[in-house]
Amino acid sequence: MTDHPIRIHGLNLSPPCRIVMIFCKLHNIPYELVVVDLTKGEHKSPEFLAINPYGQVPAITHGSFSLGECGAIIYYLAEAFHTDSQWFPSNPQLRAIINSSLHWHHTNTMKALTPYLFEKIVGPRFFGRPQITVEKEAEVTANLDAFLRRIDTIFESGVYIARTSSPTIADILLFSYLSQLEMENFDFGPYKSVRKWYGEIDSIPAVREVHEPLRQFIQNVS
Amino acid sequence: MTDHPIRIHGLNLSPPCRIVMIFCKLHNIPYELVVVDLTKGEHKSPEFLAINPYGQVPAITHGSFSLGECGAIIYYLAEAFHTDSQWFPSNPQLRAIINSSLHWHHTNTMKALTPYLFEKIVGPRFFGRPQITVEKEAEVTANLDAFLRRIDTIFESGVYIARTSSPTIADILLFSYLSQLEMENFDFGPYKSVRKWYGEIDSIPAVREVHEPLRQFIQNVS
Repeated sequence: MTDHPIRIHGLNLSPPCRIVMIFCKLHNIPYELVVVDLTKGEHKSPEFLAINPYGQVPAITHGSFSLGECGAIIYYLAEAFHTDSQWFPSNPQLRAIINSSLHWHHTNTMKALTPYLFEKIVGPRFFGRPQITVEKEAEVTANLDAFLRRIDTIFESGVYIARTSSPTIADILLFSYLSQLEMENFDFGPYKSVRKWYGEIDSIPAVREVHEPLRQFIQNVS
Repeated sequence: MTDHPIRIHGLNLSPPCRIVMIFCKLHNIPYELVVVDLTKGEHKSPEFLAINPYGQVPAITHGSFSLGECGAIIYYLAEAFHTDSQWFPSNPQLRAIINSSLHWHHTNTMKALTPYLFEKIVGPRFFGRPQITVEKEAEVTANLDAFLRRIDTIFESGVYIARTSSPTIADILLFSYLSQLEMENFDFGPYKSVRKWYGEIDSIPAVREVHEPLRQFIQNVS
């Protein structure tokens, strides 16, 4: 199966799509990006639902096989291409710990970040939603702050997000979500260890490269 | 490592803990349940955080190794004990599809079910929260209804939740969360295919056995 090309159905501006692209680049897995235009509802089209019945990006196709959910895609690619790297080691216990972090992310990173991003930035700017109220802003900011303080403590203790001694795909996942905060030039200053970690992950060439379209987009809409 | 006993740190009343216990029973993996009393905050104790820094149940210990997040635990146990069954087949593509469903669950099942359960049942009954308002009840009920209608369509088409032709651990995960609705004797009647599926999963001996303490609890507090 490794001789079939990987198609990533998604878009550069989506964090989970970026993670899959970065994973491929880090492991020299060739891929083709098949753009799914969410603004045209292409992720709910019969063609796309045949690839991913969840109607979400990213999805991959690998020969006649298709798969959704970035955490599952990473695991599948690692198995199919027999990858073994610091990003997602083949050692079963290390892989399990990183996989655990990919699950944790859904109910922690997302829970803190999504309401902040949607209510404060993306909703009003791109979806015609009303400006956020003072009360709501205080609430979403407090939740994001609590999350950032929590991960700041983790990084301060000298480990990465999955408690490993070097960065893994779980750090890249976290980074790809937090990088959306660049849309409002968010100040990581109060979270010293997060800021240092953010700079370190951002300096990985594959991460920089895949984030370039997001940064272009931010520049264009500023 | 398979000669080390598995310790499951958690409790019978927690859906993700039940899933790990059921997985072990289905694959004859011996385990010991180490009860973590959430009402005493034991999941935030230094002893527990040393096992699972996320401060959540379940966690497992396997020799000196420890791991949190039920989706990651299932994958780890399957690898460590070389399991291969209809519940989580070793075939890489089937396993990937089921793993994908375990990820999907976080932002779909949980998103629809948790607010309904907490705001309407668990909060007022067990945490001294005020009774749900009429508006809030309409909102959480509509979200749960939309989710149940969605999965009803999936089951109606003759497949299980991960689109497999026989039930998998993803169905057991979904069941273990939905079974919480038995606390209010929820009527699955309007969702005919969900109701049929629910009865089928409930008839699996390991599922019944691990759900017995929940049903006892419901009887005791009714």
